[in-house]
Amino acid sequence: MQNFTYYAPTKVLFGRGVENDVGSALKEFSPKKVLIHYGGGSAKRSGLLGKITDSLDAAGIAWVELGGVEPNPKVQFVRETIELCKKENVDFILAVGGGSVIDSAKSAALSIGTGADPWDILTKKVEPTAALPIGVVLTIAAAGSEMSSSHVLSDLSIGMKRGLSSDLIRPKIAFMNPELTYTVSRYQTACGIVDIMMHTLERYFGSRKENPLTDRIAEGLLQTVIENGPAALAHPDDFEARGALMWASSLSHNDLTGCGGAHKGMPVHQLEHGVSGLFDNVSHGAGLAILFPAWASYMCGQDVMRFCQAAVRIWNVPMDYEHPERTARRGIEVMKDFFRSLGMPVSLREVGIGPESFDALAEAITYGYTRQIPSFVPMGRDEILDILRLAE
Amino acid sequence: MQNFTYYAPTKVLFGRGVENDVGSALKEFSPKKVLIHYGGGSAKRSGLLGKITDSLDAAGIAWVELGGVEPNPKVQFVRETIELCKKENVDFILAVGGGSVIDSAKSAALSIGTGADPWDILTKKVEPTAALPIGVVLTIAAAGSEMSSSHVLSDLSIGMKRGLSSDLIRPKIAFMNPELTYTVSRYQTACGIVDIMMHTLERYFGSRKENPLTDRIAEGLLQTVIENGPAALAHPDDFEARGALMWASSLSHNDLTGCGGAHKGMPVHQLEHGVSGLFDNVSHGAGLAILFPAWASYMCGQDVMRFCQAAVRIWNVPMDYEHPERTARRGIEVMKDFFRSLGMPVSLREVGIGPESFDALAEAITYGYTRQIPSFVPMGRDEILDILRLAE
Repeated sequence: MQNFTYYAPTKVLFGRGVENDVGSALKEFSPKKVLIHYGGGSAKRSGLLGKITDSLDAAGIAWVELGGVEPNPKVQFVRETIELCKKENVDFILAVGGGSVIDSAKSAALSIGTGADPWDILTKKVEPTAALPIGVVLTIAAAGSEMSSSHVLSDLSIGMKRGLSSDLIRPKIAFMNPELTYTVSRYQTACGIVDIMMHTLERYFGSRKENPLTDRIAEGLLQTVIENGPAALAHPDDFEARGALMWASSLSHNDLTGCGGAHKGMPVHQLEHGVSGLFDNVSHGAGLAILFPAWASYMCGQDVMRFCQAAVRIWNVPMDYEHPERTARRGIEVMKDFFRSLGMPVSLREVGIGPESFDALAEAITYGYTRQIPSFVPMGRDEILDILRLAE
Repeated sequence: MQNFTYYAPTKVLFGRGVENDVGSALKEFSPKKVLIHYGGGSAKRSGLLGKITDSLDAAGIAWVELGGVEPNPKVQFVRETIELCKKENVDFILAVGGGSVIDSAKSAALSIGTGADPWDILTKKVEPTAALPIGVVLTIAAAGSEMSSSHVLSDLSIGMKRGLSSDLIRPKIAFMNPELTYTVSRYQTACGIVDIMMHTLERYFGSRKENPLTDRIAEGLLQTVIENGPAALAHPDDFEARGALMWASSLSHNDLTGCGGAHKGMPVHQLEHGVSGLFDNVSHGAGLAILFPAWASYMCGQDVMRFCQAAVRIWNVPMDYEHPERTARRGIEVMKDFFRSLGMPVSLREVGIGPESFDALAEAITYGYTRQIPSFVPMGRDEILDILRLAE
């Protein structure tokens, strides 16, 4: 067990109808004007935005809205958002959506608070010092950004995706009604399931020292997602399954499943950001479903018993005491089967990426060969190319 | 899954040496003067208080100290604490100890903030409105008060023990070094193990509706305590075992293991407060070890499959599909065996309480027959007497 700091101050209002409590709950923060930030038009068409604005109006809280955040959100749009916030004297940002919208809101809030360009903050040229307070009405169970300290943005003009963590951007409050996720498509639900699992699995495989409580919590969360993910795909309006996924999305990424681990920076997320940074058509969840099994196959021999524990406790693979490596590898195969059963790709070729792109990917992932990514063994150009070939 | 609010804003600094960071970490709260509140002299003799005051001095934070909090802390002493705080203009209370010290600190902080007598707040004559901020340096893994919203005090002059919850008294920050618990006695360690388990088990049996993620987290936490509790008793300086218990104590009582459940007020804790309220020699943990199995035996028939799930998933009892009730009851027996293996009493007679006291206990538990305690079936005089007989 390693020393850790745990700080997850987001107040969560969870369950049916909580979107109607936005106004009364936001009074606590005494906002002068709230920016309602969202993605496509579905939040408006579904009536959700109307419920939220009614609730703000009833509480006497002024607001302004800005939709249009895209998947794999872009820094250029964050700059437009910042302009609007300044013009309108916004002092609280309410993200209505999933990870993309929340991450955009975080970037704008951090830029305004710090007084710096968002990309300068993401690329660590400027140290963030303050942020506007952020709230979330969650509509997709996936990224876990509603309780996390992290955010990720893309700059398409240079084909780069960058992430940064700061306690300054942990949302103050999150409203989570599982019913709001009933209309999430089958594909996006599956991507979300993978993303949720990865936030916990990446932390899980960061723990190489004894860490029994966090291990058990992580395993329990993963079992829950494995049981409830297919149920949500089969019955999109299954409240219990959607609810389990939604709460799992938050607990997967609020650091709970990493406490005491030796977790260093989520290696497969780092690989994936290279892929969806270069190939905008690849969803983050799909990229992870492709890359995690390849990464695991590559690293498995470095800590066979850890991969055995995962195989047995998460995937119910019987332990082969004479050949532990078979158990470890069987766990990875069962995981791939599970991703396939969700309709997720498990190879790069399924998303149209061939070996001719591997060099460009390795270059993007390593920021032009200027860094190695920490993992069981550090990943530089050669290791990344090997993993991409395993994912071919 | 029921609607819930989750709010656990305590910042946790966990691991070796964190007690030396008290001063630098408390600067965030800009305290003018800190009360260092503690129990017996061991915190001083061990050198812990010296480390804390050195750290505060180095950070330029003024402080005053007050030791002497007793187990099952008394409201009379809280009143003395309040006087000192007012005289010294204390604006931050740092509890150094376990549940008794933290609960005393919470009561004083709430009284000063609200401007009311602590017992008037505990007995709900006065609604609390504010509290001084509270920090904790934890030295016993048990009560979970370091992240919880609740506190419990006794008024010996009337033989009463009362508890109250309020988000106002959630500690702002907690310093948790498992090494500080190495010197906790075998008996108190065992009491702590039971208390930790009960905070999760009572919530677990409050969930009668589907609640898969919270169930899995609760089961994982309990398994961890069952594995690491005996290890800590066998080797008091086993860092990993002590660390698992310490983190489990916090997560058991910060509401995580109750999210989405139908949890209503911890029935066995209510029974136990009657017992240790009347019999000051009974430790809270010991009282729980006696009463929980009796309560479970009494309630088991009300939801056999829930008790089966606990038996199988927590206690590794094989499921008897033809006779589920046998599995449910076997789980309760295995739990009793576990408590016995810790050296805990599992009957009232072991702590010197005979049937002649049962009427007085039932009266105390029901506040003079003025209330019933919610559970699978509401517990009034008759039900409580039946349960006490099962615990005889």
